[in-house]
Amino acid sequence: MNHTKYILFVLNLVMISSGISQKYTGSERQINTILSNAAKFSASIVNSDYEKIASSYTVDGKIFPNNLEIIEGRSAIMNYWKLPEGVRTIAHKITPLEIKINGKEAYDFGVYEGTTRRANGDEVSWKGKYVIIWRKENKEWKMYLDIWNRIQT
Amino acid sequence: MNHTKYILFVLNLVMISSGISQKYTGSERQINTILSNAAKFSASIVNSDYEKIASSYTVDGKIFPNNLEIIEGRSAIMNYWKLPEGVRTIAHKITPLEIKINGKEAYDFGVYEGTTRRANGDEVSWKGKYVIIWRKENKEWKMYLDIWNRIQT
Repeated sequence: MNHTKYILFVLNLVMISSGISQKYTGSERQINTILSNAAKFSASIVNSDYEKIASSYTVDGKIFPNNLEIIEGRSAIMNYWKLPEGVRTIAHKITPLEIKINGKEAYDFGVYEGTTRRANGDEVSWKGKYVIIWRKENKEWKMYLDIWNRIQT
Repeated sequence: MNHTKYILFVLNLVMISSGISQKYTGSERQINTILSNAAKFSASIVNSDYEKIASSYTVDGKIFPNNLEIIEGRSAIMNYWKLPEGVRTIAHKITPLEIKINGKEAYDFGVYEGTTRRANGDEVSWKGKYVIIWRKENKEWKMYLDIWNRIQT
């Protein structure tokens, strides 16, 4: 790998209160872009903005939801994320624990949490963990692989 | 990335009968090592060889089993894989659909299937999908991140 064009930095931020350690390896600018894209993805989920959700993935992006086959491509991915009428995700937060950029790809793993409001008004909160492979295409970082599963609360 | 020292090859093997497409990117030797390590992992599972299972992971390896927190380190990983007395995994097979080597790391995603024999003799089969981040350390490819979830049968 040619790292000469990167200003490499490793950020080890130990969040004392939670015991969570975060380690990001790559150029600061690119790490910040990925962090920003993760936050935008959460915002798109909360806004039910399915076009933006779909365009967070590469054209050949793949998601791995529990119990289902691998789902590939933006149209199928958009269809997966669409919630039934009246159901909303009212909170969504991704906390990357480690991101490592390796050329035009990066792996990222961490935890997520959120709250769903059902059609009857009930709210249910959940959390889980994930691994994402990001890919830089046309100067933009998109998700190529996105797999997750729950952490029992 | 400096690919000059690699003989790059991409294998696109379309298995007509199953509709499964396999795409491996990297040097033939390294791809074959990863494929072989995946097969050895399955064999270790079937043999209940927990030492070999644990040493399939990097020292700081992490697994992401459904409903649990992220499990880190060989000792904790070994503990996760240990089956209760009388229970055995009698079949385990991993089918990588895509492997891409990027320097000393590789991502790998695909499907797995297997059969568990319960203490009462009942057998239950299952299948799922996974994403693995492999890392080359001391000339050996080990799993650094291993996340999976089920496909409903």
